[in-house]
Amino acid sequence: MTAHLINRREDLMLEALEGFELAHAHLVRLHRDPMFLTRRILTPGKVALVSGGGSGHEPLHTGFVGIGMLDAAVPGAVFSSPTSLQVRAAIDAVETGAGAVVIVKNYTGDVLNFSIAVDLLDDRSVETVVVDDDLATTATQDGGPGRRGTAAVIAVEKICGAAAEQGASLADVASLGREVVNRSATLSVAFEACVNPLTGVRSFELEDGQVEFGVGIHGERGIETRPAVGADDLVASMLDPIIDHLGLARGQQVLAIVNSLGATPPLEMAVATRAVHRILDSRGIGVARTMSGPFVTALDMHGVSVTLTAIDDRLVELWDAPVRTPGLTR
Amino acid sequence: MTAHLINRREDLMLEALEGFELAHAHLVRLHRDPMFLTRRILTPGKVALVSGGGSGHEPLHTGFVGIGMLDAAVPGAVFSSPTSLQVRAAIDAVETGAGAVVIVKNYTGDVLNFSIAVDLLDDRSVETVVVDDDLATTATQDGGPGRRGTAAVIAVEKICGAAAEQGASLADVASLGREVVNRSATLSVAFEACVNPLTGVRSFELEDGQVEFGVGIHGERGIETRPAVGADDLVASMLDPIIDHLGLARGQQVLAIVNSLGATPPLEMAVATRAVHRILDSRGIGVARTMSGPFVTALDMHGVSVTLTAIDDRLVELWDAPVRTPGLTR
Repeated sequence: MTAHLINRREDLMLEALEGFELAHAHLVRLHRDPMFLTRRILTPGKVALVSGGGSGHEPLHTGFVGIGMLDAAVPGAVFSSPTSLQVRAAIDAVETGAGAVVIVKNYTGDVLNFSIAVDLLDDRSVETVVVDDDLATTATQDGGPGRRGTAAVIAVEKICGAAAEQGASLADVASLGREVVNRSATLSVAFEACVNPLTGVRSFELEDGQVEFGVGIHGERGIETRPAVGADDLVASMLDPIIDHLGLARGQQVLAIVNSLGATPPLEMAVATRAVHRILDSRGIGVARTMSGPFVTALDMHGVSVTLTAIDDRLVELWDAPVRTPGLTR
Repeated sequence: MTAHLINRREDLMLEALEGFELAHAHLVRLHRDPMFLTRRILTPGKVALVSGGGSGHEPLHTGFVGIGMLDAAVPGAVFSSPTSLQVRAAIDAVETGAGAVVIVKNYTGDVLNFSIAVDLLDDRSVETVVVDDDLATTATQDGGPGRRGTAAVIAVEKICGAAAEQGASLADVASLGREVVNRSATLSVAFEACVNPLTGVRSFELEDGQVEFGVGIHGERGIETRPAVGADDLVASMLDPIIDHLGLARGQQVLAIVNSLGATPPLEMAVATRAVHRILDSRGIGVARTMSGPFVTALDMHGVSVTLTAIDDRLVELWDAPVRTPGLTR
């Protein structure tokens, strides 16, 4: 297999979290048993924000622990949910009386383990926001798992984080999070699948000149293998279903998250960002804010996701609020 | 070839710079003919800082234009020097009376084109700082090209940028830059070479279980192909020659830049960061500051470079000074 920058496989997560803490010791603190990360300094009386999920998506979620975003992040193994005991301990460590909002990407394991943790903490006030923005999957019907949660989680963590920092109540932070979910949609495309450093296995193969449309962030194949087209046409094919789904009309303002799935060079990401702006501009939709870079990755997948969130002035103000985390500072 | 996120090849650089400006319009401004980027707002009377070089290394240099770092960045085509006309125009646009320091990574084309530009601007006071930190190459002897410039350029841009912001003179900023170069050394290792999006060609092939030791940032092969070892052993094999070269003794403080060459997942980068801290700690060398992530990339190369800069309290203070750029903010 291709060489990877790891020691013993069974030590990967602890060593990575230790290295992460060493690089960002002024912002975060690692708790080892069970394993989770918190802010270095909590703000008593603030609604606590907790998120987490499988690892391999960094900077999500650990990189967004800090002032203006999360109070705690709970990492599972690579592409695997954290345990309910980890989640419970994390909420318990950062909930300081005003309650906690847990932000969960919609995957069966995550939703299950987070909900068990919340049930175990029946002496705490906890609200759950489930993020399900991936239009390559289908909304919940007849007990199905529903749409996957992907990069809209960044908008939820940032906007809820700002509101919590400003003193919003538990109910208001949770309701804001659900509103951001409802206003957001994402599609993802891969040029090359990711390789799991623990197994050396590439999750799927694509022939030359093909792209995989509608991939997930765990190496899942997409909904269709298509011939590659130019960046502008590819981005248009991602934006069209998003615009339809959100019912975006002329004059609407959006937040655009143009997200590298891991290994896509910044030059290519910038070409995609330009395409997003030009296409939305041509439809009369205003890009109020753009974020372009690797935020919700799938290890070293070559590919891009585009998330739009329909916003108003109130949400822009929360998006612009100060933030100081390892993965986002301004 | 593998699909890439581009439109027409000949439009890649302009489109990427347009997309970059759209994503960071509050900080940078794109000049189209000739092509270079400047800060949105200049500070008259401040020593101007200009850098540049071939593209494909983003966030370097365009991502470090902004408050506390560069005034202008001059991008060439992928892995190719910018022209002297671009460099001249950039210096001319941002030099406001206090002179300019140009920071050049030591490659023949860059050094030539930057020096022609400086000669053409004989009415301006310009000092040049050449960065040559890569220990996989040999210092200049008998007219050879000398050591390559790699990730130490980040330390030079940050520290010179802080000094210029604080009002240091042209001579002082240049001398500080040369001092940082002399205090810095780098080694780079690749697990998989990069693919040029314009040609689809991977710059070299490695067999399973091999690493390429001492690679450059343009897909150059290294000085030796070695069997893969664990991350701790690999990092030690990079640190040993750096420690020797810099003559680091117990009690010395260093700045560590643990740099992804492009596609290395953050989990693996964190494992490498942990190794750097533990190994230096075991030798009695203090890591005063660490930076871990993709800063000086080689497109989508899988690999890591480690740069150490021997620092003192004065340099730490400049390193810690405020900075607000697309690629680094704190």
